[in-house]
Amino acid sequence: MGSRLASEANAVVLLSGGLDSATTLAIARSEGYRVHCLSFDYGQRHTVELAAAERVADVLGATAHRTVPIDLAAFGGSALTDQQIAVPRDRDESQMSHGIPVTYVPARNTVFLALALAWAEVLPAADIFIGVNALDYSGYPDCRPEFIRAFEQLANLATRMGVEGTAIRIHAPLIQLTKAQIIRSGTELGIDYAMTISCYDPDAEGGACRGCDACQLRARGFSEAGVADPTSYRLDR
Amino acid sequence: MGSRLASEANAVVLLSGGLDSATTLAIARSEGYRVHCLSFDYGQRHTVELAAAERVADVLGATAHRTVPIDLAAFGGSALTDQQIAVPRDRDESQMSHGIPVTYVPARNTVFLALALAWAEVLPAADIFIGVNALDYSGYPDCRPEFIRAFEQLANLATRMGVEGTAIRIHAPLIQLTKAQIIRSGTELGIDYAMTISCYDPDAEGGACRGCDACQLRARGFSEAGVADPTSYRLDR
Repeated sequence: MGSRLASEANAVVLLSGGLDSATTLAIARSEGYRVHCLSFDYGQRHTVELAAAERVADVLGATAHRTVPIDLAAFGGSALTDQQIAVPRDRDESQMSHGIPVTYVPARNTVFLALALAWAEVLPAADIFIGVNALDYSGYPDCRPEFIRAFEQLANLATRMGVEGTAIRIHAPLIQLTKAQIIRSGTELGIDYAMTISCYDPDAEGGACRGCDACQLRARGFSEAGVADPTSYRLDR
Repeated sequence: MGSRLASEANAVVLLSGGLDSATTLAIARSEGYRVHCLSFDYGQRHTVELAAAERVADVLGATAHRTVPIDLAAFGGSALTDQQIAVPRDRDESQMSHGIPVTYVPARNTVFLALALAWAEVLPAADIFIGVNALDYSGYPDCRPEFIRAFEQLANLATRMGVEGTAIRIHAPLIQLTKAQIIRSGTELGIDYAMTISCYDPDAEGGACRGCDACQLRARGFSEAGVADPTSYRLDR
């Protein structure tokens, strides 16, 4: 997990309200960073995950938390932002691992990291954390290690900080981890995952659907980690 | 200016309502692209430039024009978005060329190109145009050629298009040009620059202040190009 910093440095952590970004936040805190959490209201179907993000930031000791509206839905093209495209349900593992899923949001991590970089430059913070992981990058091009490295290179060319000699680092501490390993790490750090939500299609109270890819991967992760699954599921399924 | 395309291909052009991006749009049209213009309402002090962007897109034959709200002001740190920082006035050339100006908006071109990439991926469009130029990159790190190249590399790693083998290109056709050369190019392409606005601090009718860096550079550009300056200036100065 890296060594504790001598004095607290600022970091920006991208926070969705899901399991992965909560774990990323806990890791950044365990490394001694003063964490500034950034969430986005990007036209996703449900805002219960934004409420979850707020809880997570509070419980895990973030110094600040901002939710910035951003209209990715204006461009369409994803089941997560476009009402015309259905969220796929009850797919098996071979279907999930086949190509880029329709829940892919165009250029999402590029947009999110760009906005994190804007805040980092103002704070200032030289460290940005994002919770992408090995499971994601079978399907999402902007979750791969080479994408993270390319963004770090860009960040150092794009900013006053970079030009003036402060190296900006993009941290993706989960990038080599499976869902089970993430859950084990977070459990060791004391995270109560009941406050997180992973489902692509929850009900108004945040009850998870059990059927979408995210629900299935999460449930399997708890099972493989040998940790009791604290997820609240919908009563109607 | 490149060769005319055999069949029209889609491009996304970042459009501010200023002189540079209008010229960039005209160049993209002259190369045969079906142009989708993208403007941002990013908490800037004046929205007259958004009205100018709409006029420019219409007059220069854009296929589509979208203005996306984006809350860069939430992060503060720039005279263009933060009411606490004054826009500098009446600086001479040596002051302008000294370091990064306070009108710098943190990570602005990274954020703008990221959103252009999101739209490009949905359209699809493999070509994105941005009007950065040689004058800008004396002061703004995200206007330099190495920044543009780094973003192009990122774009090809970040997207479904890039992964599936379509090379995304970031075009910065003004990057080696002075303001006078830009004005000459645009004048040859038939642009009426009266519809554009460059001033950082215009009045409600779009009257330019004459004193800010942008006004001074624009006026000098027309003078050096030997083209009559069509700018409407404020009556109160």
